Amino acid sequence: MSGTTQDDYTDRYARRVRGMTTSEIRALFAVASRPEVVSLAGGSPYIAALPLDAVGEMLGKLAAEQGTTSLQYGIGQGTVELRERICEVMALSGIHDASPDDVVVTVGGQQALDLIARLFLDPGDVVLAEGPTYVGALGVFQAAQAQVRHVAMDADGLIPAALVEAIAATGGRAKFLYTIPTYQNPAGVTLSEARREEILDICAAHGLLVVEDDPYGMLSFEGDAPLPLRARRRDGVFYVSTFSKTFAPGLRVGWILTPHAVREKLVMASEAMILCPSAFAQGAVTQYLSTMPWREQIKVYREVYRERRDALLSALEDMMPAGTSWTTPAGGLFVWATLPEGLDSKAMMPRAIAARVAYVPGTGFYADGVGTQNMRLNFSFSSPERLREGVRRLSGVMEQELAMRSLFGPELGDRRRRTAGAADVPGPDLA
Amino acid sequence: MSGTTQDDYTDRYARRVRGMTTSEIRALFAVASRPEVVSLAGGSPYIAALPLDAVGEMLGKLAAEQGTTSLQYGIGQGTVELRERICEVMALSGIHDASPDDVVVTVGGQQALDLIARLFLDPGDVVLAEGPTYVGALGVFQAAQAQVRHVAMDADGLIPAALVEAIAATGGRAKFLYTIPTYQNPAGVTLSEARREEILDICAAHGLLVVEDDPYGMLSFEGDAPLPLRARRRDGVFYVSTFSKTFAPGLRVGWILTPHAVREKLVMASEAMILCPSAFAQGAVTQYLSTMPWREQIKVYREVYRERRDALLSALEDMMPAGTSWTTPAGGLFVWATLPEGLDSKAMMPRAIAARVAYVPGTGFYADGVGTQNMRLNFSFSSPERLREGVRRLSGVMEQELAMRSLFGPELGDRRRRTAGAADVPGPDLA
Repeated sequence: MSGTTQDDYTDRYARRVRGMTTSEIRALFAVASRPEVVSLAGGSPYIAALPLDAVGEMLGKLAAEQGTTSLQYGIGQGTVELRERICEVMALSGIHDASPDDVVVTVGGQQALDLIARLFLDPGDVVLAEGPTYVGALGVFQAAQAQVRHVAMDADGLIPAALVEAIAATGGRAKFLYTIPTYQNPAGVTLSEARREEILDICAAHGLLVVEDDPYGMLSFEGDAPLPLRARRRDGVFYVSTFSKTFAPGLRVGWILTPHAVREKLVMASEAMILCPSAFAQGAVTQYLSTMPWREQIKVYREVYRERRDALLSALEDMMPAGTSWTTPAGGLFVWATLPEGLDSKAMMPRAIAARVAYVPGTGFYADGVGTQNMRLNFSFSSPERLREGVRRLSGVMEQELAMRSLFGPELGDRRRRTAGAADVPGPDLA
Repeated sequence: MSGTTQDDYTDRYARRVRGMTTSEIRALFAVASRPEVVSLAGGSPYIAALPLDAVGEMLGKLAAEQGTTSLQYGIGQGTVELRERICEVMALSGIHDASPDDVVVTVGGQQALDLIARLFLDPGDVVLAEGPTYVGALGVFQAAQAQVRHVAMDADGLIPAALVEAIAATGGRAKFLYTIPTYQNPAGVTLSEARREEILDICAAHGLLVVEDDPYGMLSFEGDAPLPLRARRRDGVFYVSTFSKTFAPGLRVGWILTPHAVREKLVMASEAMILCPSAFAQGAVTQYLSTMPWREQIKVYREVYRERRDALLSALEDMMPAGTSWTTPAGGLFVWATLPEGLDSKAMMPRAIAARVAYVPGTGFYADGVGTQNMRLNFSFSSPERLREGVRRLSGVMEQELAMRSLFGPELGDRRRRTAGAADVPGPDLA
């Protein structure tokens, strides 16, 4: 073998990776992180809003005073101290019947999803998910060689009739429904109160497990979010969340609240993946929740993000070309935009980057190449001024595209390629 | 579904978890962590040997001064700063041709192994591994639904003729050789200089990939360790290591040095598992390697562990019943003991715990139930005095077993059950 430059390994890969292709668009995203580019592409919280000096003091103590445990190995499920705190956090979201014994600490929400996939998905299994849905979840399901069938949403979230139809269409082969009911990524919509019971009843009636991903539920801008699905029904519901949006993603701490019967297998599967979650990261979150005003910090994030959402929405209102539409999120980090007929968000990316603005093309959020006319816009990371400047640059690019199109006609539409979602997956800093 | 107490999920699990059984012995290991028990079972480094105040100060600054990046998301491959430092660490082990571009940062060595398994193993694939081998690797291969075929070792490590035989026996179906050539876990033996080239030649001749796991190479007690396999051959060799034994396991930072052609797929697969490694943990290791005397710290660990190995070996020499044998490790954390004929290390565990001493029974290190007459003894975590006391208690238990056996005859041997390795897997704090 002489394979350090060309790929001598192709014929050795497992089947699950054969379809794994890298994206020409990843190179563009690398550029998107340059300071001169206004990035509407990321999903990053505004960490500067944290009291970093106090956090630093807390972490310094954690190592100096508790280092023999916080820097040592731990158990696979995660420390009982953190699991107890996590139950308090979930209580704030309206989940009051959680036992620390049924919480499994994970490396962010991503490992939680991968763990559930590993436990339940065989190659060829079907997963139902909103369309569009979280890029990272699509990566998990692809790695599990599962088929994703998208279920349509409207302004009130997942459409019950569409779910019933999808269940029927898959002949009961679907293993679970993956859903982000609150402040959905990327669509920015929220499943209405009325529909929550309806969706749960449909899943129960068909014996369909529910994987509820709730990273954004606490980031509400108008009153509290609707109760999580897990707060309404415990059987058959896996609740996944993370501290990435309410504290800090750099620690990579998330969790699963699991039906008790499954907990032991989840822990063993997690041990096979990572041995145990970081004792230091767990100690950091435990200390943060025990000694710092974390509830007030969440209010700070809410204020900052609401202001930024308003800035983004008013900039879109003022500057977007006619025929563009977008969602109005009541919380979370994202706005989902639909471009005028004939524009292709992926084909437009290189010109957008050249104009020093970045976004995530819609195709990355679908497993089936849909979404060419959509884009996800993030408002949590950039200041209101930067957001407005980003929209200015973006609208300029779109106006140009529309002008070219009116000059040269629809054959430019040929640029629209339908590719598997994986090919459009951005890096994790943009997921 | 009413399944929060009993398991309503059995028929839904993926095939890979159906064989996953929890171990009656895990309950015993939980007890093993009690202070009154002398645990020879763990694989934990002696963290108290670290300058915890200085580490605390360093980590405090990392959050206070660099929090907007160290607490934020990062890229899937890991920061270039850490990957550059990792190349310096590998150079100290004799690997001088590593490029930071070919390093993938992982959540400890465990995720590194899981990642490689995910990239190359389909259900039914064969992996060759030393017998005995690392518990956590067996967990990875089982989760990948691969078959492990063990290759025999002697005092000089893996036996080349046995490897050739195993390759032939598997009809070239083996995807890779998983090996811990230096200060092997659990056997404590090291692959000799002479055999390293021989093993590499055999693998190259048969197109067999090599996964070299090297967590202990720097913990040598007599001069430096032999050059890693990767330092001798770069094509087809995946080099895996971790900072868990040279710095701190609580941060969960490991890495893969991969053939370039495979790097992009490894990164994408890792993103699907964990999105990205912890920016804070990476910053912690980068700062530690940049600003603290890490080479001297490794010397400290070497001194501490050599003294403890000597204490354990002399205690074994003084107190073990006739017919007991053990290995003499030149580095690392473990001694592998073979009990007198008729003793069963797993069956003996409850009585050992009752006598306030713990070890890991040999069966956990084999995929095929072999190892009932063996046990792994750790010497890195306990003081010389505690080690001696542990051996005193252990030898007492063994003497009792032997006495009972001579009284009641070999039918006691019936207690010896042959069970799949998974059933004996200890928790991560003991792996």
